[in-house]
Amino acid sequence: MASVKLSKISTRAPKGWDKDTTKHKLQQMLTKLDELQNLLYAERKHSILIVLQGMDAAGKDGLIRDVFTSMNPQGVQVTSFKEPTPEELSHDFLWRIHQHAPACGMIQVFNRSHYEDVLVTRVHRMIDDKTAKKRMDAINDFERLLQENNATEIIKIYLHVSQEEQQKRLKERLSKPEKMWKYNAKDLSESDLWDTYVKYYDEAISYCNKPEWHIVPTDQNWYKSYLVARILLDKLQSLKMKYPGLKK
Amino acid sequence: MASVKLSKISTRAPKGWDKDTTKHKLQQMLTKLDELQNLLYAERKHSILIVLQGMDAAGKDGLIRDVFTSMNPQGVQVTSFKEPTPEELSHDFLWRIHQHAPACGMIQVFNRSHYEDVLVTRVHRMIDDKTAKKRMDAINDFERLLQENNATEIIKIYLHVSQEEQQKRLKERLSKPEKMWKYNAKDLSESDLWDTYVKYYDEAISYCNKPEWHIVPTDQNWYKSYLVARILLDKLQSLKMKYPGLKK
Repeated sequence: MASVKLSKISTRAPKGWDKDTTKHKLQQMLTKLDELQNLLYAERKHSILIVLQGMDAAGKDGLIRDVFTSMNPQGVQVTSFKEPTPEELSHDFLWRIHQHAPACGMIQVFNRSHYEDVLVTRVHRMIDDKTAKKRMDAINDFERLLQENNATEIIKIYLHVSQEEQQKRLKERLSKPEKMWKYNAKDLSESDLWDTYVKYYDEAISYCNKPEWHIVPTDQNWYKSYLVARILLDKLQSLKMKYPGLKK
Repeated sequence: MASVKLSKISTRAPKGWDKDTTKHKLQQMLTKLDELQNLLYAERKHSILIVLQGMDAAGKDGLIRDVFTSMNPQGVQVTSFKEPTPEELSHDFLWRIHQHAPACGMIQVFNRSHYEDVLVTRVHRMIDDKTAKKRMDAINDFERLLQENNATEIIKIYLHVSQEEQQKRLKERLSKPEKMWKYNAKDLSESDLWDTYVKYYDEAISYCNKPEWHIVPTDQNWYKSYLVARILLDKLQSLKMKYPGLKK
């Protein structure tokens, strides 16, 4: 098992990248992404599942706004997985997830995902290591099902923020009126559990690696959005899609 | 892999069983089943999934009526899987199935199931052997998920009817007004494919055997219903359930 160590990976854009050029590049890509999303929808041979994970304030919501807003909403769905409801808890942990798997032709974004079931649950000792292992095996089986049985391309993104940058952003939530609604009293205590989160993230990212995760440095928001758009564009271009002809 | 050969297994009740005694035994069991289903529902620790498969006219509907009618409908759900809709076909084959997995405390009956996706589809050459193998692997993964992650007890029942008895029943559908609605022009042509169905059933039953299937002789309907009730009762009794105390 390839072992990922998040603590060894930079949370910042590589040297030489500047904000304005990168933002311009993102804009150019968005036009191409829009075209390719139309093609994906028309061809209905593939589907795309983007799994977005990251610590609180890593910038998941902003990423979704930056990259997906310009696409046809008919072909893009975003599902945010919150704390499970009692009904959801009375099923296996993948039950609620599977319902939102993308249909052919669709792009589905998971804002948080089934990975929470081997992260927050472990940090708060709601499940033991043995159960976590079983769940990670089940995640691998489930992701294989989607890939092999429904031509779903899975893109797993870990938004990699530093603890310093996270603290800064959490404090901003308390001071800026337009960000206050995002503040949750839990956020700061969760931040105390940083190292524990990192440990379980390392494990999940290493164990559930088909396909492998993209670790996206996210201390600068402009770089993060550029990079995810790039990853998505490369994936869509690799599918060699064609508009279908007239139905016979 | 243990190899099941349906053609070697009797479709009739063992010698010495008679209809009246067996029907009486079934009635006695139904009372116990009702009690245990209540307990299952109250305890909410386990769930039961009954997968019912069999050739056309093997008696699935009659079995459901005989065994489940007397239970509290709040705790029992029956889902019949028909030919998939276009929406269902645009997902992986387990997508529509997973949505009906039983919640804790529930008994769920699948009248036909995900196994059709490696049976009728193979008989009619809609999928090749490689795809069928992938699907059977996915079925094993899915059934393990339910068992390991949601304490679901899976009971797989193959209703084993002889071809002679099937023909008799299909003809009855044409002659008895109360059975005509069940007649489907496809039924007789499907029956011509008997040996092909048996071949793929042998394969699926042998390959997807955790837990193993119950091959239930079903040429006599009274024996079939007795035996399935017995299997369900044994399973419920093995769970050593208790009524939960007052909530703290």
